[in-house]
Amino acid sequence: MIDRSLRNGLTGGSPLFLLEAHDGLSAKIAEAAGFRAIWASGLAISSAHGVRDANELSWSQVVDAVDVITDSVAVPVLVDGDTGHGDHNVARRFTRQLSQRGAAGVCLEDKRYPKLNSFANGPQLLDDIEHFANVIAACREGQRSDDFVLVARTEALIAGCSVEEALERSERYREAGADAVMIHWRGSSADPILSFARTWQRRSPVLVSPTTYYKTPTAKLVDAGVDGVIWGNHLLRAAVRAMRETAAEILAENSVATVEESIASIDELFSLLDYAALARQQARYGVREPASRPMPGTPRS
Amino acid sequence: MIDRSLRNGLTGGSPLFLLEAHDGLSAKIAEAAGFRAIWASGLAISSAHGVRDANELSWSQVVDAVDVITDSVAVPVLVDGDTGHGDHNVARRFTRQLSQRGAAGVCLEDKRYPKLNSFANGPQLLDDIEHFANVIAACREGQRSDDFVLVARTEALIAGCSVEEALERSERYREAGADAVMIHWRGSSADPILSFARTWQRRSPVLVSPTTYYKTPTAKLVDAGVDGVIWGNHLLRAAVRAMRETAAEILAENSVATVEESIASIDELFSLLDYAALARQQARYGVREPASRPMPGTPRS
Amino acid sequence: MIDRSLRNGLTGGSPLFLLEAHDGLSAKIAEAAGFRAIWASGLAISSAHGVRDANELSWSQVVDAVDVITDSVAVPVLVDGDTGHGDHNVARRFTRQLSQRGAAGVCLEDKRYPKLNSFANGPQLLDDIEHFANVIAACREGQRSDDFVLVARTEALIAGCSVEEALERSERYREAGADAVMIHWRGSSADPILSFARTWQRRSPVLVSPTTYYKTPTAKLVDAGVDGVIWGNHLLRAAVRAMRETAAEILAENSVATVEESIASIDELFSLLDYAALARQQARYGVREPASRPMPGTPRS
Amino acid sequence: MIDRSLRNGLTGGSPLFLLEAHDGLSAKIAEAAGFRAIWASGLAISSAHGVRDANELSWSQVVDAVDVITDSVAVPVLVDGDTGHGDHNVARRFTRQLSQRGAAGVCLEDKRYPKLNSFANGPQLLDDIEHFANVIAACREGQRSDDFVLVARTEALIAGCSVEEALERSERYREAGADAVMIHWRGSSADPILSFARTWQRRSPVLVSPTTYYKTPTAKLVDAGVDGVIWGNHLLRAAVRAMRETAAEILAENSVATVEESIASIDELFSLLDYAALARQQARYGVREPASRPMPGTPRS
Repeated sequence: MIDRSLRNGLTGGSPLFLLEAHDGLSAKIAEAAGFRAIWASGLAISSAHGVRDANELSWSQVVDAVDVITDSVAVPVLVDGDTGHGDHNVARRFTRQLSQRGAAGVCLEDKRYPKLNSFANGPQLLDDIEHFANVIAACREGQRSDDFVLVARTEALIAGCSVEEALERSERYREAGADAVMIHWRGSSADPILSFARTWQRRSPVLVSPTTYYKTPTAKLVDAGVDGVIWGNHLLRAAVRAMRETAAEILAENSVATVEESIASIDELFSLLDYAALARQQARYGVREPASRPMPGTPRS
Repeated sequence: MIDRSLRNGLTGGSPLFLLEAHDGLSAKIAEAAGFRAIWASGLAISSAHGVRDANELSWSQVVDAVDVITDSVAVPVLVDGDTGHGDHNVARRFTRQLSQRGAAGVCLEDKRYPKLNSFANGPQLLDDIEHFANVIAACREGQRSDDFVLVARTEALIAGCSVEEALERSERYREAGADAVMIHWRGSSADPILSFARTWQRRSPVLVSPTTYYKTPTAKLVDAGVDGVIWGNHLLRAAVRAMRETAAEILAENSVATVEESIASIDELFSLLDYAALARQQARYGVREPASRPMPGTPRS
Repeated sequence: MIDRSLRNGLTGGSPLFLLEAHDGLSAKIAEAAGFRAIWASGLAISSAHGVRDANELSWSQVVDAVDVITDSVAVPVLVDGDTGHGDHNVARRFTRQLSQRGAAGVCLEDKRYPKLNSFANGPQLLDDIEHFANVIAACREGQRSDDFVLVARTEALIAGCSVEEALERSERYREAGADAVMIHWRGSSADPILSFARTWQRRSPVLVSPTTYYKTPTAKLVDAGVDGVIWGNHLLRAAVRAMRETAAEILAENSVATVEESIASIDELFSLLDYAALARQQARYGVREPASRPMPGTPRS
Repeated sequence: MIDRSLRNGLTGGSPLFLLEAHDGLSAKIAEAAGFRAIWASGLAISSAHGVRDANELSWSQVVDAVDVITDSVAVPVLVDGDTGHGDHNVARRFTRQLSQRGAAGVCLEDKRYPKLNSFANGPQLLDDIEHFANVIAACREGQRSDDFVLVARTEALIAGCSVEEALERSERYREAGADAVMIHWRGSSADPILSFARTWQRRSPVLVSPTTYYKTPTAKLVDAGVDGVIWGNHLLRAAVRAMRETAAEILAENSVATVEESIASIDELFSLLDYAALARQQARYGVREPASRPMPGTPRS
């Protein structure tokens, strides 16, 4: 049975692996593959919309995108909530609506709105620690359900600060009401992450996203004290590669004959989306037969 | 220079090839690959949303999805408008809004709302010919711009009717104001399509979507009288295959190390979405420096 | 304490009065006045959007409008769901989403999609009884919560059919899973309504909307067996009258001085919307002080 | 004939009067009353949604609300765009989308995001002048159409600064590309406004919103150099008063009989929304007759 509780997943003793999804289809694929939780990535959702991960989507557009994802799967969805999209009041509204739309939790980060993707070239501006702690506290207070998980992500390392700064910030956010912390990093060595996790000593669950330090064995992260591992953008990147190659080949061949074997079949798509259930529903509840001829309107007097 | 006119593309003498897109990213990929027009596929957009191609998205959700696509590219976008989502009044509102959001044209089909995908098992119910002709006429009358292209798609062959029925319907829709016709078919032989096109004799542009009869050489279709070829769902299907394989491998390996080489890089993604333009914009218009400490609110009396 | 259960309200022994609302503000006004339930009217919501009550809003636009209402009040909201906006599958999606957005129940009517407002001149086309019963059954089965109330509204009288037809239809819908029935009527005499209610004998709760037979004493309706009375469009109509008069006067006077006394004050508006709570929140969680000078972007290498 | 150009309206020699609207209905009422332009007020739109004027609506929710308004009227609509909802990049996206949805112009103000309504108690934090000038410049550069009007509103007086500061800021914004200036004020005397306008000497059109200094004769404002007068919230306030009174009376009377004469009739509503046009359309394009019996689905093999 699926455990819809993200909290249980993060505190159950074994590490939780979250796979990125950016729409209903990628979420269904992640779930069907066997992942027990989904990361609704800001980078991936922005990219799918054709925009940059710099708050070019409004917070309500993010809520709508998350709705599509949570409607598509039964496993818990952790939402990349960026900075909360404004002050404590906006963040509170945003996170409440995420909860209403079925998200299991949100991850908020201590940068300034509008943010810039952590891997992008450009200023990475940290929020004031007390300001962000207040955002966390307001979101905690504003939640209707205790089940909803608040993850505080510090971008201290991304902004060039020390592991100590990251620890200090994380502790402050934990006190303010965060259920878990996420420590982010864009270097190829996992050393700062390992150092953070070892010092933190599971005061609360620790999440990481090994996009750049992907060569570090997962077991090493878990041994150091990591409870949740986010594969943050890999379905999107797989789709990009495949779509580019397919588009190029179709253009070159002026035909889809040569790509037919290397792409999913229509039947595979129908199976993923459970068209059989719709057919069963139609068998049960009927389908209209073709209409007879329309007649001109006969307005009542 | 990009010709944003779909009408020119369909009447320019050389065939127009439209590649399916289902979101901003796939549209950008299609355009970057060199396609001169995009097909905003109902099947693909529904699938990306994790729902079935049976009008499980409302018409305004389709409009919003199209908005994301047209915002992402400069080439013309032809929208799969299904049946128009109701009567002539609903169809008119729907198609006007598509035009406002930047679509170059819409393709409406003569099935009954709610429709079922033409490749799916289940009843394929044709609309009454006069009813649908009235939908076309109302949409024509309701358009603000003559540039907006109305394609009438007949599902006669899909519903088991003859090529003659398809021709009769297409002619009626042409008289009602359709700029072009689309003839749809789900068999592996293109014979009915070729027969249709030869008899039609380019009375107006003919579009086809060779999903099932993909082995037919494109030149054969064009020679028979086809002006537009829609590759209707191939980017989506490429993405599905790649995402499924990648998800399976990450789960099995408990790591992303082995998929790293087979997926697009983050930099490739940033390049597709033109993060460089954002950096230039920030250099020109500035970026805030970190805020100083927040202060308690000092309400005015 | 507010009873958020619409079911309790309809079966509690005393009649439930539902006042129309069309947006967050009108809902707050209804609640503040003391009403224990709200009717999210299709006519009123359409009108507020400047469109006609003929399904000119998509079902998801209705869902979004309902979200605004349920977010604004604590009392239960019964949604005017028209015909369900398509077949059993569309209706099921629509009603599930209403429930997720906080609606306490939905009222579906046995007309054909797209509908026309029951008071408007024009064809009032009844749905087939079995088709509509299947819509009800599918919506019942599709609901996640037993608390969500399904009201089946018959338009038999509106379409010119007999009270007997209305009773037969209502019974069929009750068997199919409807929790309550609504009997609608556009005449100035309440006789058919009274006759219906007396024969029905509270087999399930009966709702009515006395827009045209408003002179009938409410007690008479209740005595005959009515459990819920919907004042279906009166806040909207009050707003229309007042706005028209105010607009005319401002135009004529070229000044707002003469209308100032006859309209709500800004402070009254702030009080309705509880700006004081925002001030308390800001006192608790702080407000940023003015930013220092922006600096040019300093991209990381 | 309606002049859809807001620019012409502001530079045509005679003052332009803009009446607040908050949804499609209020916009139709303003237009029908004879107003030649509409102010899509942030306070009024927020209030209609049941939320506070403190950016509790996202920028895309504002865009959607504006879409409803522009779809309902032919006169130009000037949108209250608050601070632009973030940095120059967000503001540029926001204002482009407003233009696409049919807005004639936007008014941006030099406060910090998230803003607080200028009449509310609480901190009124001014943006840095150069930061805001960059927002204006970016929005100017980002517009597709020269017709789209950019109004720069200074909140200097609201924040407690001098008329000189307001003039300095306005001049800087004009240089940055603003087509017009708006000077806002919350005192009951119009002196600072008059002083501003006289010194400005119509360097560019000046707009004002005499909500608090409503006793000042309009002619006095115009004589001082005001080109546009915004009646900023009066339809909403008229609606609030009327709805509160009506709700109270219905509750007290347990009947709508006594309010019937003091509210608009259903026919008046139908006339405002032009149901006659729908009837004509139906007469022309037909209406389906009632469907025959539904049949069980007969899936194709």
